[in-house]
Parts: sequence; C-alpha cells; structure tokens
Amino acid sequence: MYDFYQDLIEKNDSKIVLVVLDGLGGLPRTPGGKTELGSAATPNLDQLAALSTCGLIEPVLPGVTPGSGPAHLALFGYDPVEYQIGRGVLEALGASFPVQPGDLCIRINFATADSGGVITDRRAGRIESSEMERLCEKLQAAVSAPGYELFFHPVKEHRAALVLRGPGLYDRLNDTDPQITGKPPAELKAAEPDKGKATVALLNTIVKSAWNALADEPKANAILLRGISFYHPLPTMEERYGLRSLALAAYPMYRGLASLVGMTVDRRPRDWEQTLDVLHERWDEFDFFFLHFKKTDSTGEDGDFDRKVEMIEAADAGLPRIVSRGPDVLAVTGDHSTPAVMAGHSWHPVPVLVHSHYTLHDGLEKFDEVHCARGTFGLRPTSQLMAIMLAHARRLKKFGA
Amino acid sequence: MYDFYQDLIEKNDSKIVLVVLDGLGGLPRTPGGKTELGSAATPNLDQLAALSTCGLIEPVLPGVTPGSGPAHLALFGYDPVEYQIGRGVLEALGASFPVQPGDLCIRINFATADSGGVITDRRAGRIESSEMERLCEKLQAAVSAPGYELFFHPVKEHRAALVLRGPGLYDRLNDTDPQITGKPPAELKAAEPDKGKATVALLNTIVKSAWNALADEPKANAILLRGISFYHPLPTMEERYGLRSLALAAYPMYRGLASLVGMTVDRRPRDWEQTLDVLHERWDEFDFFFLHFKKTDSTGEDGDFDRKVEMIEAADAGLPRIVSRGPDVLAVTGDHSTPAVMAGHSWHPVPVLVHSHYTLHDGLEKFDEVHCARGTFGLRPTSQLMAIMLAHARRLKKFGA
Repeated sequence: MYDFYQDLIEKNDSKIVLVVLDGLGGLPRTPGGKTELGSAATPNLDQLAALSTCGLIEPVLPGVTPGSGPAHLALFGYDPVEYQIGRGVLEALGASFPVQPGDLCIRINFATADSGGVITDRRAGRIESSEMERLCEKLQAAVSAPGYELFFHPVKEHRAALVLRGPGLYDRLNDTDPQITGKPPAELKAAEPDKGKATVALLNTIVKSAWNALADEPKANAILLRGISFYHPLPTMEERYGLRSLALAAYPMYRGLASLVGMTVDRRPRDWEQTLDVLHERWDEFDFFFLHFKKTDSTGEDGDFDRKVEMIEAADAGLPRIVSRGPDVLAVTGDHSTPAVMAGHSWHPVPVLVHSHYTLHDGLEKFDEVHCARGTFGLRPTSQLMAIMLAHARRLKKFGA
Repeated sequence: MYDFYQDLIEKNDSKIVLVVLDGLGGLPRTPGGKTELGSAATPNLDQLAALSTCGLIEPVLPGVTPGSGPAHLALFGYDPVEYQIGRGVLEALGASFPVQPGDLCIRINFATADSGGVITDRRAGRIESSEMERLCEKLQAAVSAPGYELFFHPVKEHRAALVLRGPGLYDRLNDTDPQITGKPPAELKAAEPDKGKATVALLNTIVKSAWNALADEPKANAILLRGISFYHPLPTMEERYGLRSLALAAYPMYRGLASLVGMTVDRRPRDWEQTLDVLHERWDEFDFFFLHFKKTDSTGEDGDFDRKVEMIEAADAGLPRIVSRGPDVLAVTGDHSTPAVMAGHSWHPVPVLVHSHYTLHDGLEKFDEVHCARGTFGLRPTSQLMAIMLAHARRLKKFGA
C-alpha cells in the first residue's frame, strides 16, 4: 500500500499540523449521557469541526486496544501491525539515548525486594528522578559484561532504560516484572530456547550483578526487566512523505516515537503553552508538526471524568494559537480512547477532524464521538489519516490519466 | 489477520449474546417509505439502540448477496471467502448426521420425473417429512457401492442428505438439479475430469440404483444432487476465542452452521419463546449464545412485507427476556437482508447494535437501516463484529506498549 502512495508524493510549501490529544475518545458516565469530549465546553474545536471533514479513526484493528506505540505509528501513517515496536526501544528513544540499529533495548523498573528476593514494591515507591539518576550511575559503574557495551540510562521516577550492544543478542524474551507484589521476579525464558540461551545467561548475570550493587539501597534494591526489544529504525517521514517534521511533546515516550520515524524533536516544551510557543518559533523550519497533549490520557487513566473534561477544555483553549498561525492542514484527534469509566486505554474509535481550504464542511454541532460518526470522513483505520492530510495539503499527485 | 487476534484473547466470566434475526435488513415498499424494520413497532430494540453503538454490517463483500452459510460464518468471525462451506455439508450437519472429516456430503431433493426421465416437479410436491423418511430407509436398503459407506439421512419435506465415506472421492462437481422443470437432470461433470472421473462414475451408479429403487413411487420417483462438498471441520469458537458457545436455532441449517464452528447445539427450541426458555435454563454453562430467529427471513422470501414487519415485532417482544438475564454484551443484527420487495436475499448492509457497559450511546431514535448509518459502529464487514463483541466483553488484551 505504501509503495503506491510513494509514487504520488510531491513537495510544496504547505504546512500540516497534527494535534494529538492523547486518549481523547471516551464513554458516557451514565446511560444516555455524554462522553468526556461531549461534556466538555470546546468552543474552538466545535467551530473548527463545523468547517471540517469529521469522522472516527480506529487505531489498529476493530476491537483492539492499542498501547501508545502502535497508536502513534498509525497516526504517522505506519501500519502498526507491520511495524511492531518494543517498549524497551520506546523508553530508550524517549529518554534521548542515542540508540543504534541492532541495540537490545530494555525498560528497567527500579523495585523493592525483601531479603528473600520477593518483590514488595514494583516501583520502589516511585522514587524521585534524581535518586533514580544516581542509581543508574551506580549501576553503570558496577555492572559489566565482557564483550558487550552496556548503558544504564535514566528515564523518569522509577523508570530507566538498559541498552545492550554486542554480538549474538536475542529479543524474544519475557518480562521479569511479576506484575503483582508478593512474588519473586519471573524467570527469563526465550521463545526459542536454543537461540536465546546466551542472551538469557547474559541478562541473568547482569541482573544478579545489579541486585548486588543495589543491595544496600533502602528502597530501590532490585531491578525488573520489561519490553526487551531490538531497535530497527523505520523509514523516516521525510523518506516516505517528503516531510520535514517537528515533534513537540512534553513526555519522553512520544518523543521516542517521533524519533523512530525520523522527526526532529524539540525537547523544550514542558506544557501546552510552551508547545504552542515552540510551534510559532520554529514554524518556518518544518512542513509537518506533531503536537502532543498528554493530560487527556492521564486523567482518563486515573478514572477522573471531570478532570479529563477540564483537560480537553484546556487543550481547546490553545487551539486559536494554532489556527492563527494559518496551517494549510490542521487535524485534531487522539491516538486512542481512554474512557474515564474504564480508567485505561480502549478499542473505541477516536473522533477526528481535518480542516483545510479543501475540506468538506460537515456542519456538525459538536466535536464528539456521536457527532463525528455522521461526518464525511467516515470510520477508517487511523493509518489512513496521513494520506488524507497529505491530500489536503496538495502533496499527492493525480493517479492515472 | 486471525493469528493477530489469537494472541490477544483472554478469558473471563463475561456472557455474550448474539441475536440473529434472519434476513433482517429490508427496503422501502414505496418511494421515500420505510423499510420493514423502519415500519415495525420495536420499542425494545429502539430503547436498546439508543444506549448502544449502532451501524451496518456487510456480510461478505460489497454488493455480494450471501447464502445463509457464508452470512453466518461471517457473524461467527470467520472470513466467508476463506471458509467456503458446501450446501451438502450444511444439510448433513443440520440434520444431525455424525459427519466425519473427509466425508463427501450431498444434498438430495426427492423429485418427480416422467417416464422419459424429464423432471416434472423438482420437489416431488413437497412431500411430507414422514414420507421422505420412509424413502430414505428404502434407499438405504436398496443402494450400495462396494468399498464405500453410504448414508441416506432425512432432512425435511423433500430434502435429504447423502453422505459418502471411502477412498479417492472428489468434490468439484456440479449439481444435477436442472433448476427448472421440463428438463432431465444435468449431467454430472468434474471440474478436473481426470481427478473426478471415479467419483462421477460412482455417483452415476448410485443415482441409477436409487431411481430404480424409487421407480414404483407415485410422486418421489427420482433424486437430484446438489451442493456436493467435503466436510472439513473449521477451527472451533473455543479454539479461536476461548468461548464455550451454545446455539439455539429452530431450523436445521443454522444448527448445522453452529456445529461447524464447534458450538453446542440444544435441539429443543421450536420457536422464539422456547429459544428464550432454553437461554435462561442453560445460562450458567456457556460464554456465548447464538440465538436464531427464522421468520423475518421466510416472510421476506415470501415477499410479504406486512408479515415480515409482524415477525420483527414478535422478535422484539422477546427482547426483554434476554436483557433481563443481564448479558455483558448483547448484539442484535441479521445475517443478511431479505427485502420483501425482492422476495429473496440481497446484498444490502444489515443494521446492527452492540450494547454493553462499555459501548458508546448513539442516542438513535429508531433501530433501522437509515438511523444505523449514523451510528458510531460505522459500516463494516460482518466478520469484524466478533472482535468488537469480544472487546466489549473485555476478552481482548491490549496490543503493544
């Protein structure tokens, strides 16, 4: 499918802005009630939706609840079933570690274990980031594996990344995080025992050495491994679409996802206001801008319906600053749904609007799930959004005579 | 595609009910008029639809009018183009014949022929079932084929099944039913003459022997062969989805279709009321319940618009007995459309609603074709419905980090 589009790509001076309100989609709290988005006062989004083509997008496949990785790859136009990215890779990229092709990337949770090796806190009381940084330095000094390069790289709070570089590594391994407290770490096993046994032995040695190094720590005296995965770079957005792209995201994982497809990441924004500041500042340098707004998801994950509504309203309040900059194409959507009533990601399709000089004007009264179902954009896989944005930016040539 | 979902399946205690109103979809009788469903007074369906995600499902492919076999396989989540099931297999399964893998299954019509072998009635005046049963016994005694096992098994009225078991059989053969009276039976031909010639000869001998045995019968003095097909069992619903499934259908073919995907079939229900009785009785034993309501289709096939409306209303009246049992997921739809104005199956997409604690509430005013087109479920291939029901039952894990 992608090869087909590649032949149609043409460059011009247009600017595309993709605003991702993380976990935007929701569910009603009471029978017949409105969703979070339906409940929110979003005058700017509503005004834009009336002059846009609106619809619903399905991140991966019908009924499938996506993690942030596949959900964002789909938004960037990459089939998330074809391109499967491990959590370890996302953590390392998100934390700005200079990952190289073939690196084995692992997410590390600092944890608390009792004297018998049973995990009593899977997040070591969510230690301070500064404390975790100290522990990473300690491990970097204490742990080694002959013939391999090893990098303990800080992420945030109890989270870090471990990157292994060297020959004969293997990645089809389970997490050692037991998922609940009161158990020891899970035993590392390879999906193909023969192929994986050297890497299993190597990681067991590293983990043992790390636990020894942490033995005198009061809280974070253990590490757990998650999302063990190789880094293989994807074709970039510039290669695929001819777009010089800028990512503006306050959270590491979304920066990592943007790096994975070759976007430039500006690491300054720490909130929505700063995101919009940097958008204005760097407007002339790029063709495509990915703006990420996190708190619609985190409030949904907290199960806080009212707070999610407020966060949607906060995002809406920033919209005029984007519109005023005059993008040729402005799309607003989410990566997936995070209904507060479910306190987690879900499979539900996500509202989307695409506004440009060349879009149909659906005239919807409100930008929400139920109204978007009636829009001219229809219900589509999320990975189709990119082609539709490119078309509205006049960046796709005619096919056939 | 299916492999992708299999990795996400997880079991829980949820209950899923799929109500299939056969041939539900329809067409207006007059310009600008309502369909059968739009005309029917369906207070229970309407109330449910307002609190459901609603849409349209397309049984096989755009524009394709399905038979009952592919239409139901799609509802069960099996791609009907990939899994093609012969009519002979459906008849044998539907009539409770204990089919074995590799059996060659043939639907038989008892027919009337004149002395020259020309068919004068393709259904032998729709003889009584008891009469047909007597004829099956007669054939079972009179007809044999050395080296093969042969079973003449009664179905209903003029219909029976013939099952052949033995070596070297072939199934790519035409029907001998000439489709119109005034012609002799069609000559049996194999799609690949070399591979099929032994089976053609065997069947010709069997048919000749059967006609001889029936020569003194006043009406049913001939048999016609249809839907010659091998039985190859499909992966079961339990294997694919981890669902223990119960089928409640008053008509043999739908029981056969359910058997094909490994559902348990309770053969007691003879009408809608009994179907609901057995649903309640066996509620604790299963995870998934397939409830089939036939008369919306048969009245449509009869071209009787008003009677089809009445049948839809009769089905609707039973709905509270399902809702009151408290299924976690309740889906109501049809296998295909059977517009009374066409007096037959059609390709039109079929209204569907899915209700659960986790569905969007579309707030539609009426459950019918035109309103469902505005729902958040969208327009989808029927085979996607199963994944969406599983998701709403929380039986699909998250994909990716």
